[in-house]
Order: sequence, then structure tokens, then C-alpha cells
Amino acid sequence: MAPCLSFFFLFLFAFSAIPANSLPTFFPGAAYQSLIKQAKISKPKLPFKTHYFPQTLDHFTFQPKSSKLFYQKYLINSDYWRKGAPIFVYTGNEGNIEWFAANTGFMLDIAPKFKALLVFIEHRFYGKSMPFGKDSYQSAKTLGYLNSQQALADFAVLITSLKQNLSSEASPVVVFGGSYGGMLAAWFRLKYPHIAIGALASSAPILQFDKLIPWSSFYDAVSQDFKDVSLNCYQVIKGSWAELEAMSTQKQALAELSKTFRTCKSLHSTASARDRLRTAFVYTAMVNYPTKADFMKPLPAYPVQKMCKIIDKILSGATKLSRAFAAASLYYNYSRSENCFKIEHEVDGHGLHGWDWQTCTEMVMPMTCS
Amino acid sequence: MAPCLSFFFLFLFAFSAIPANSLPTFFPGAAYQSLIKQAKISKPKLPFKTHYFPQTLDHFTFQPKSSKLFYQKYLINSDYWRKGAPIFVYTGNEGNIEWFAANTGFMLDIAPKFKALLVFIEHRFYGKSMPFGKDSYQSAKTLGYLNSQQALADFAVLITSLKQNLSSEASPVVVFGGSYGGMLAAWFRLKYPHIAIGALASSAPILQFDKLIPWSSFYDAVSQDFKDVSLNCYQVIKGSWAELEAMSTQKQALAELSKTFRTCKSLHSTASARDRLRTAFVYTAMVNYPTKADFMKPLPAYPVQKMCKIIDKILSGATKLSRAFAAASLYYNYSRSENCFKIEHEVDGHGLHGWDWQTCTEMVMPMTCS
Repeated sequence: MAPCLSFFFLFLFAFSAIPANSLPTFFPGAAYQSLIKQAKISKPKLPFKTHYFPQTLDHFTFQPKSSKLFYQKYLINSDYWRKGAPIFVYTGNEGNIEWFAANTGFMLDIAPKFKALLVFIEHRFYGKSMPFGKDSYQSAKTLGYLNSQQALADFAVLITSLKQNLSSEASPVVVFGGSYGGMLAAWFRLKYPHIAIGALASSAPILQFDKLIPWSSFYDAVSQDFKDVSLNCYQVIKGSWAELEAMSTQKQALAELSKTFRTCKSLHSTASARDRLRTAFVYTAMVNYPTKADFMKPLPAYPVQKMCKIIDKILSGATKLSRAFAAASLYYNYSRSENCFKIEHEVDGHGLHGWDWQTCTEMVMPMTCS
Repeated sequence: MAPCLSFFFLFLFAFSAIPANSLPTFFPGAAYQSLIKQAKISKPKLPFKTHYFPQTLDHFTFQPKSSKLFYQKYLINSDYWRKGAPIFVYTGNEGNIEWFAANTGFMLDIAPKFKALLVFIEHRFYGKSMPFGKDSYQSAKTLGYLNSQQALADFAVLITSLKQNLSSEASPVVVFGGSYGGMLAAWFRLKYPHIAIGALASSAPILQFDKLIPWSSFYDAVSQDFKDVSLNCYQVIKGSWAELEAMSTQKQALAELSKTFRTCKSLHSTASARDRLRTAFVYTAMVNYPTKADFMKPLPAYPVQKMCKIIDKILSGATKLSRAFAAASLYYNYSRSENCFKIEHEVDGHGLHGWDWQTCTEMVMPMTCS
């Protein structure tokens, strides 16, 4: 996600005088060390078969180019399926469909009870579902077809065709989704009520649009997650932004920050450090599950609580920024696989890069402003 | 509309021997003559102000061309409007918006009771609402943007903007429409439930798609209209198709048909005569109003009844085709303004020509097959 500048520069304090090296290399102490031991989360083979559907490029115009086909990936689990029983469809969001299939255990949990067919459909322009192959992200001429309304129409066409192929037109369809996928599930039920009889939309901020709720709601919720655990933790994180801002005006800022943030290569911009922290705290709040999990990154149960434990245990002599960095390392290095951090130009393992395009065109929400 | 061949060639009889000239010029007899006197339907000035809205070309992609603007025409009547009261919107169909405004008196009738604002929105690619000006119909590159889903999105954007401009966000919106406009009204309520609280869809055959009802339903209803008045009338019309078909194999067919159909220029195709009759009977059944009206053409009250009166009164010695032609003349020349008929390349006064494109792309229904 693009950074929200308005959030980061609220406070201004001095920072450069505090030595970052007073903290142990990478990890801040025993509390965090003990967590690492739990981090070996096994990745079982997904119980799905992979299929590809010939999908129409543009569902809303009849131009010569509109009827171009591309192959849309989808996964099927028919282990519990009894013909006539419901079809549960995950409306894929911004990433490889396996990512969501691996992290939506709820659907697998309830499938036996409903004897349901499970279908996970990949969102166009993510994973393997690239309408223009390697050129899909080349320009607005190709990326123009990446939006939620085309994606919803994809789901409608694929589900309808699949039901026909299975001679299961009478099977009720329920759509599921989380985050943007949850928005898609909710919108799908609204826009295609003849195809889905219900939708389960989880963590789906559809009210973030059109000023329906205060613009600050998303970051308020993130802050509240940390406040709920420890007011000191919240204050340290909040104070670290100001330290970072103050540091950015110093001559040796990039060298200092590279050291503090244990970067593999010297940083080119203080904004990279800022984004690094922001991502860690925001994403950890988003995946503050009561169990250990591996959605964005491998994390223990209640990761916000664990982050605050790290912050609260560090001696108050350390800078707020170094303490925030130590906490953020839980997010970036819980599995202890990194010796140094590739902060700039980090490779995205989830095929998330299309989301920037979506947030700059259609999904304009406060938490995605740039 | 494009002709439906399957309907026209069911029967085969001899025709050429029967002299078309045994009928009075143009009009078949006293029964029809008396009707003509009632035909002077005055056209009052419409009680609407004309506006134009800068509309987006493509609501469903983010290509460089998508955000091109065109001016969409809409009409407003605020004579009965009280702020906060409902907004009644006619979702314009395939023609000039004035045409629908002049023929939807119901909305004007009920406006005072509801203190409603009346809005008639012209459909893109009809009337003055041409996205590419005179080039709008040039090719699929331009016409590709003519479809119902873009039209519905146009309505959504325009209505939302209008309510903001009037500071009347809280006013409930009800959409109205007839025929294709009725389909649009029904679909609008389904697809944009947050914008319209209700829809009145009149003569809207939304069930004609996807084999939901028998394909023959439309023509069955047309036939039934004529059967209900007179079984003989129905049989004469049905028999005329066979006579026409038989005639088309004769050497002098076009000369004979040109004479029978009183054409201004010689016909180049027997299909033109067939389409001529088909249009008359189908359209008259569609506008079989209990009052005199001028929707497709000026017509008396109960025009199907009047057509059958013409057919039933003609001596049985006349050919079925000539009797059918005489009845069809009620549709084409009720106001007696024509001395001969321009059957081929007739100029369409309602800006209907985009409908052919729509029926060959999206609106594929049995009554529009070609």
C-alpha cells in the first residue's frame, strides 16, 4: 500500500543523538528470542485442484478488443461435495489465489457439514491470471482492465459456467471473502443477487468510501489495537515517527538509519524507513489473530501483544525509533531467516503489486492515500 | 428491429393471380376512412427544461480513453417539486428523450400528488447524447460503448450528481421506464439499490433472456392480440405471409408487390414488403392503447381492433396479402399524410437506429433475432 503521509508527520522530536547500537543485533532481548522458537509454521499442501477458465477481457463494452480471452485460475475442492449441495466461492483478492486458499480455513472447516463444493477464484491481474501475460502491467492500456467491477463480472461468468458444467444450476452459491476479497463478496451479493444467495464478508471496509465514516477510522483502529495492550507501547510507536522525521533533516541520516534498520544496502530515502515501520505496525494490527499464522508473514498468536512486550521491556534509555524497529522486527523476522533487511525494492512474494494501481484508480480510501 | 425469419415463412400459398387493384387506392373502405378523421393528434410543447451532463465514456475500465467526457441530455420538470420530496427518473431507452417524455404522461399525472421532481435522462448513443458526435456510429470502436450496463452507470452518476447539486441527497429516487426503458428501470433498482428505492417497469420483457420463458412468448402475445379481436383477422394475417412467400418466387414479384404496397419507388426485395407488414402488426400490438396516441405513429384508440375491422370488412375475393396491407396502412398512414410509401430506406424519426446494434450484441431476445 502507498504510505499515508498525513499520519506520519504529526510529531517532531530530536533523535540523532541516541545510539542505535545499544540494542542487541537484530533482536531486542529474551522476550523476542523465545517467540522465535514457535515460528516454524508448516505449510501443508493445499487440498485443491487447479483449473483455468477462458475469461472475457472486458465485460462492459463491445469493442473489437473486448472479447479477447485470458485464462483465469481457480481452485476446486470436491472432497465433501454432494451434487445439489451448496457451492462456497471465495472471491479472490489482490494476490495469488493459493495465498487466500491457505488462509481461509473456515471454508474447509464448514464444507463437510454442508457437503459443499469449495471454489477459490483468482482475481484478474494477480497470480497466474494475467490478461496480457508478462505485459499485463505495462501501461494503463492493459492495467485499465484491472478493477473490481470487471473482477465481479469475472466471478459471475465463471460461477454460472461452472454450475452448468456440473449440471448443478440449482445449487445455492454463497460467496466468501476477507479484506478487499470481503468487499468483493459483499458487492457480488449486491450486484449479482441472482447468482449468490449470500455473502460472508470478513474485515471488509466497504464503508470507507464516499465519506460514510470518518476518514481516520482505519488508523484509529490500528492505534487502538496497540493502546489496548499498552499505552506506553502506543506512545513509543507514536513518538518514533517524530524522531524519524527529525532525523531526516540530519546530514548523516541515511547512514544512521541504515545502521538502525540493519539494511543489507545503504538506504536512499528516509521514507523507506518510515514505510518499513508503518507496514509492520499496520499489517500486524490487520493480522492480530489469536493463533499463530502466516498470512502476510509468519507471526505468533496475538502479535500486537508480542510487539508491545518487546517495546515495554527495552530500557527507556533507548530511542523510541530503535524500540519501534525492534518491535517491527517481529513482523519482518519472526522466523529468523534474515541476517539483514532488504528494505528498498523488497520483492513481494504475494503478487500484491497490482493493489497500488487499484488504490490510485478505484479503491481510494483513507488508508490507501498517497 | 431486425426481422425474425422463423416467424414469416410458416405457410405457403399461391398469390400472384389475385389483382391487388380491386381495392380502393390506399385505403380499403369506409370503416378506415372514418377513422382518419380522428387522427389529428396535437403535439403540445413538453413541460421540461433541457440540460446536458458531462458524462464519462467508460465506467468500467481505467484506460486512457475511458475518462473522455460526452454531453448527456436530460430533461427536468420542477413545477411540482418541493425539496425533500421524491425524484422520479425516467431511464431513457432507445430514442430521443423527448419521445419518451411526451409519452409517459403517468409521471406528470402523479407528480403533483408526490410533489416530485421529474427527470428524463436520454440513453447514450441516442438523440443528442452522442459520445463521438456524428462519428458515434462509425464502427465497433465507438459503438462498443453502447450497451445497457454503461447506460445504467450513466444514470447512477447523473442522479447522484444531480442530488448533490440540488442539496437533496435525502430525496428518495424512483425510476420509471417502459419497454427497454422498463428493463433499464428494473435493472437499475437491482444493480444500484443504494440509489433507487423503487422501480416501475412497464412492458419490460426482462424474462426473455436466458431461456427463462418460451422463446415464442413475444410473438404468441402479438398473435393473441389479433385473435382476441377476430379469429378471421388473425387467419388472414397469418395467411398473407404464405402468399407473400409464394409471390417471391414469381418473375414479376417485385413489380406486383410495389403496386400492392403503393411504394414511391420500385421495391428491390420482397423482404422489404415482409418487414413492412411485420412492423405494422407487431408495433400496433405493442401500442394497442385504449386511447388515441402517437408513440410509434399516430393511431386511434384500440388500433388492433380497428385493423381487424378493416380486414374483416373487405370482401373475401381480395387476396390475404392485399387485406393485410390495407390493415397495415392504418399504422403507416392514419394521419393520411402519405400519398405513396417509402418502404426501403425509410427515415427513422425517433433516432432508433442504435437498437440494431444493441440487439446484435447484448439484447439478444427471440423478438430481435435476425
